[in-house]
Amino acid sequence: MSAIDDLVTELARLPGIGRKTAARLTYHLLKSPPASAQNLANALLVVSEKIRPCEICGNLTDTSPCSICESPRRDRSIICVVEEASDIGAIDRSGGFSGLFHVLGGRLSPLDGIGPGELNIAPLLQRLNDAEDVREVIIATNASVEGEATAVYLHKLVTPLGVRTTRIARGLPVGGDLEYADGVTIAEALSGRRVM
Amino acid sequence: MSAIDDLVTELARLPGIGRKTAARLTYHLLKSPPASAQNLANALLVVSEKIRPCEICGNLTDTSPCSICESPRRDRSIICVVEEASDIGAIDRSGGFSGLFHVLGGRLSPLDGIGPGELNIAPLLQRLNDAEDVREVIIATNASVEGEATAVYLHKLVTPLGVRTTRIARGLPVGGDLEYADGVTIAEALSGRRVM
Repeated sequence: MSAIDDLVTELARLPGIGRKTAARLTYHLLKSPPASAQNLANALLVVSEKIRPCEICGNLTDTSPCSICESPRRDRSIICVVEEASDIGAIDRSGGFSGLFHVLGGRLSPLDGIGPGELNIAPLLQRLNDAEDVREVIIATNASVEGEATAVYLHKLVTPLGVRTTRIARGLPVGGDLEYADGVTIAEALSGRRVM
Repeated sequence: MSAIDDLVTELARLPGIGRKTAARLTYHLLKSPPASAQNLANALLVVSEKIRPCEICGNLTDTSPCSICESPRRDRSIICVVEEASDIGAIDRSGGFSGLFHVLGGRLSPLDGIGPGELNIAPLLQRLNDAEDVREVIIATNASVEGEATAVYLHKLVTPLGVRTTRIARGLPVGGDLEYADGVTIAEALSGRRVM
């Protein structure tokens, strides 16, 4: 039973999956054709081997620069700053934004020991210095206390560079997580952004 | 993004996991050390390559015969018949049983085209014929209509062999699934079994 127990243990490490659910998933895979488990295993291996942060924006991707940074159809004059790479997918699916992204890799949170040095803020300022055609930075950090603090901090750094900073509108439920918001709410928040 | 999308798609194939949960799990793995995804992938590959039904009881295992059939500490005079291999773990964890098992691989269900020929019934009868020391068969199919029908069918086949057949007590919530019952309920059902 040890191989089965191993798989149950590994699945139970995932967030929101307890041992009973992990056992159910394991037996589901055991009853499915072997290809099911193998496809999942291969997808995991490809992701763990190939996915790296994009050298420009920090998006998680298997090509660097990522497909968004490379795309000729994106509006290169607007950069949307997000906390996590997973937020890019949420914003992109909302259809409310066609510019570029920048991933901070978190938010300012002194209690957790996360200061400006721990976030990808210096690369963002470098990007704004290097590119002449950026006219707006949309700060799309979460609507939490830390996200707001991060937005204010970025605003103070970006404005002196002659770039307008905007903040996504309070269409997000306050205290909510961008990752879980629905597309319409995200689109509302994007279109209702205001000058800081 | 395609490698990430692939992993999301594969995870979303699992029962009870939708696309949003799959995306959350994927980004959790991307934020974890690569070893997390690799360990899970390896566990999946080992399971899909090594796990086979035990030649004696049908339990899913990486050794055949399985550790339960091989164990010198199990009571070889009692065989507990279950629908699925996953039921073995549930019964074993209840601590109410120390005998051997036999996995039917399902239950009689004419509407789904599952008759006696589709289940591991012939190997069970063969086992009872070959082993002289079996004195009881506990039928631990689920408390559903099909599970009851299967129990009655087995009772009619096993009794002529001179082996007592018992049915686990109605400690299970009627209509419930053995896989989801708690250990105490299963132990109650085992200790309250009655002669058919």
